[in-house]
Amino acid sequence: MDRGSGLALWRQIADHIKSDIKKDIFTPGAKLPTEITLAQKFNVNRHTIRRSISELVEEGLIRVDQGRGTFVIDQVVDYQLGRRTRFTESVRKQNKNPIAKTLNFTTVSAGRDIAGSLKINEKSDVVCLETIREIDNRPLAIGSHYFPKQRFPNLIEVFKEEGSISGMLSAFGCGDYERHTTKITARPPTKTEASILIQSRNLPILVTESINVDKHKQPIEYGVSRFAADRVQLVVET
Amino acid sequence: MDRGSGLALWRQIADHIKSDIKKDIFTPGAKLPTEITLAQKFNVNRHTIRRSISELVEEGLIRVDQGRGTFVIDQVVDYQLGRRTRFTESVRKQNKNPIAKTLNFTTVSAGRDIAGSLKINEKSDVVCLETIREIDNRPLAIGSHYFPKQRFPNLIEVFKEEGSISGMLSAFGCGDYERHTTKITARPPTKTEASILIQSRNLPILVTESINVDKHKQPIEYGVSRFAADRVQLVVET
Repeated sequence: MDRGSGLALWRQIADHIKSDIKKDIFTPGAKLPTEITLAQKFNVNRHTIRRSISELVEEGLIRVDQGRGTFVIDQVVDYQLGRRTRFTESVRKQNKNPIAKTLNFTTVSAGRDIAGSLKINEKSDVVCLETIREIDNRPLAIGSHYFPKQRFPNLIEVFKEEGSISGMLSAFGCGDYERHTTKITARPPTKTEASILIQSRNLPILVTESINVDKHKQPIEYGVSRFAADRVQLVVET
Repeated sequence: MDRGSGLALWRQIADHIKSDIKKDIFTPGAKLPTEITLAQKFNVNRHTIRRSISELVEEGLIRVDQGRGTFVIDQVVDYQLGRRTRFTESVRKQNKNPIAKTLNFTTVSAGRDIAGSLKINEKSDVVCLETIREIDNRPLAIGSHYFPKQRFPNLIEVFKEEGSISGMLSAFGCGDYERHTTKITARPPTKTEASILIQSRNLPILVTESINVDKHKQPIEYGVSRFAADRVQLVVET
């Protein structure tokens, strides 16, 4: 730091940290060193560091998570909620390459809510597929996808062959499925959700419930997705 | 409570509280008495009350806000994000009558973000109108609506005459304005937002940023709305 430069020390330090963020020395989502560590590194008072931090918070580059530390703001990915847009497609347009990991498959009775959405009997079986979507090893969303078992009897085998939900639906002749309705809410994450999404329990998740239909407007998928709200923004074009 | 009825005490108490909620003795959003008070009222152990509470949380009737207490779940209002739907219209369809209160008007320089959305010069003036939307005295949303001053020179006078944004835009010949793009995020509320929305700072708000255009696709309004996420759900039909 240059004490004779005419530029306040806190401003010089803020600029230094900002430049480290731009150079990816501190990557999106990374935790910054503590105030004490930074004060020692720059050989200044903690109050000076506090001033630099609050300046960078103002500028939208970092955020303070009370009790956990100071973090570099994540880059926000847009997810277009269009009739025909798929998550992967929507994200690829932003030059990012998402991957989807499959956590597990279960077969369960539909129950009232899912049956109502899929227009099937409450006692019918549905196959539930749990996925995690990631970009650059940062998880973005947890998805629970429900499919009527009667319509897609050997779904799990076909999914494993095709490697993706859209591939699987294409194999069943439903490649042209469309998003019909999406409901959007927000809530604090559960402990498990926070741990899978690697996010603070103090930050909310966006929850979407959506119904996809085939070309005859028949519901074929009911999905619940939970997005890390500091990393994903939903976009609706009307 | 009937100790000889064969029905577990915790179940009887849960049913009793449930019936009080149905009868609006405990209204949506209301705080329940503390565990100690309930234990005394029903003359049971606190553990029994805790079991009843966790049952009602499971059933989605109440929620525990750590450190603040136990609250009756609010009824969720759907807000349809359609091309032509207005907030008031969308809510009226659910037999609820929202009112919009105007907080204040200010005229400010557009700045980069607003200017970009309205496709005007950064140094142009915009009129900002701040509103609160309520149902049954429960606030649902805080809105900041920005209009290009050059296009709507005497906006404040016209708004005061018409009493609503859609009325004002009609008076300017823009009654057929449409929603063009909406971006949706979620975050914890600031202290002021939590206080205006009468909600816990532990619960998130849904934030929408939207651009409305006239029939020539010219942007005429840029709006930021902040919704109490436990009371409003956004709905997109594609």
